[in-house]
Amino acid sequence: MKLFLGIDGGATKTLAAIIDEKLNVLGVGKAGPSNYHIVGLEKAIENIKNSIIAASDRAKINPVFDSACIALAAINSKVDYARLLKRIVALNFFVKLKLVHDGEAALNSIMLKNKGIIVILGTGSLVAAYDNNGNYIRAGNWGHIIGDEGSAYKIAIRALNYIMKIYDGRLGFSPIVDEIIRFLKIKDLSEISTIIYTDLKNEEIAKLAPTFIQFASKDNFLFKIIKEEAEEIVNAIKAVYSKVNYKNIYLTGGLTRSKKTKLYIDLIKEGVKRSLPECKVKVAEVHPVIGSIVIALKEENVEISHKEYVRMTKELNILLRQIH
Amino acid sequence: MKLFLGIDGGATKTLAAIIDEKLNVLGVGKAGPSNYHIVGLEKAIENIKNSIIAASDRAKINPVFDSACIALAAINSKVDYARLLKRIVALNFFVKLKLVHDGEAALNSIMLKNKGIIVILGTGSLVAAYDNNGNYIRAGNWGHIIGDEGSAYKIAIRALNYIMKIYDGRLGFSPIVDEIIRFLKIKDLSEISTIIYTDLKNEEIAKLAPTFIQFASKDNFLFKIIKEEAEEIVNAIKAVYSKVNYKNIYLTGGLTRSKKTKLYIDLIKEGVKRSLPECKVKVAEVHPVIGSIVIALKEENVEISHKEYVRMTKELNILLRQIH
Repeated sequence: MKLFLGIDGGATKTLAAIIDEKLNVLGVGKAGPSNYHIVGLEKAIENIKNSIIAASDRAKINPVFDSACIALAAINSKVDYARLLKRIVALNFFVKLKLVHDGEAALNSIMLKNKGIIVILGTGSLVAAYDNNGNYIRAGNWGHIIGDEGSAYKIAIRALNYIMKIYDGRLGFSPIVDEIIRFLKIKDLSEISTIIYTDLKNEEIAKLAPTFIQFASKDNFLFKIIKEEAEEIVNAIKAVYSKVNYKNIYLTGGLTRSKKTKLYIDLIKEGVKRSLPECKVKVAEVHPVIGSIVIALKEENVEISHKEYVRMTKELNILLRQIH
Repeated sequence: MKLFLGIDGGATKTLAAIIDEKLNVLGVGKAGPSNYHIVGLEKAIENIKNSIIAASDRAKINPVFDSACIALAAINSKVDYARLLKRIVALNFFVKLKLVHDGEAALNSIMLKNKGIIVILGTGSLVAAYDNNGNYIRAGNWGHIIGDEGSAYKIAIRALNYIMKIYDGRLGFSPIVDEIIRFLKIKDLSEISTIIYTDLKNEEIAKLAPTFIQFASKDNFLFKIIKEEAEEIVNAIKAVYSKVNYKNIYLTGGLTRSKKTKLYIDLIKEGVKRSLPECKVKVAEVHPVIGSIVIALKEENVEISHKEYVRMTKELNILLRQIH
């Protein structure tokens, strides 16, 4: 029996899933974050290892895989790739190993057959596609410091920056300040700085974004921020579209799963309609760890029918929900 | 003999200076960073303690001070103040202790007699003044995540974000890319992400800013970034000016000390001239640790003449250069 491993590792957690050659899901495992730009190389490797061991224990197998695909956030350069590959290979769990940017897992997870553009709107942001030659094309996703325009994190920090400007008199008062004070459960706006720098991690800051988007319908300045961030996403879509010309655009990620973010999703849809009227935008529920498994199967030339894919996805979802 | 202590603690280092009641400089000491939003509370307190002990050893005194002023970056809220004060008091070094935002040290260091506005353009940025009632007024300085507009750090990350947009096709090519590749000593632009997230600390990223400002004279998009950041500083000056009406504006910090940043300083000066033609902008060399000492002396009602201030400053500069 051949064993396959898929991993999706990011800023919040690392998920591992194991299947056999009949596409039966044998086990899943969860560990801490493995974005090495945020947690460091040692911690990232440790969490990748822990996720594999957790999944293997549940699958009741030894962790030796015929083919594995590890999809990680923050693989942005050859240096990143080489650093991580060396340490992951040394774990000695794999006969065949593929290490990819997490956008590739997202792309494969929706069975695009290389003919669509995926837009991830989560803590970070990314627009990606495979071109007709199978090359991975991306725009954005350069991280929370020099990138991730249009992401939940970027929206949240821009909204908080706006509030600090009101606080110290650089911008005029808005009634939205009172709503934000209630939402953040603070007494004084100066506490925002303390919360951001000492209390919240990036992914917790990002979780504030849906509410700020909701407030944007009542505040011109917040609305301007949300519109600008939507334009950033549209520009990234245009950059990828110019290289692949695919008309199907799939949105996914946390910002697509909240009722509060409708305004933002609508602004992105309107922007695409204006700039690329030939394109269709759909919101797609994707599970990146499934994309990693799809890549691992491809590497061993295992064919997947749509029916098998749907069954596998359902099984995986049930197990993933158990460890969530 | 009465002993006075002044401390200036920030994201890069903590400096301590000890003087006696005759304003003789007895010793200075240096330790690691004490911006607790960046290094954490434990490390910040440890470095404050170490800077005091280093200065006391050089001064050959026991660390017991009649009056001390500790000026720290990142004291932005009552919560910050309370957290730090409790731990600093527990060090048991002080009869009288004043804990202030580092902008207050900068303000006192140039002997403004409460009649000027100070603009710090360093790794972070700040505009501050005392109003006629002695209240501390500030705009900006909400840190690298939700503030510090117009700072070296903010200019550097915006420039790098611009380059990543060229790299992935969101913006068109500019010849400045080749100059930046040479300046950063990289082979491929994707390495920028790796450098930023795993190699450089905030203050090291900030050190890239003067060169990016220099490049801005040859690149329209970089020029636009520099102009927008200068406008942010001008807006902060306007916010403080509206509360104090002081016509003297003093610029200080790393960005005022480089030949490469002339364009940026000129843009700020032009912006002030346009918005507040009644104001005068000067570049002032300030030493925040001297400002802390001035505050410590005020607390004990020690008068300082301008002559004594100049002598003390000279003595301190000599000693500070020795430990730099």
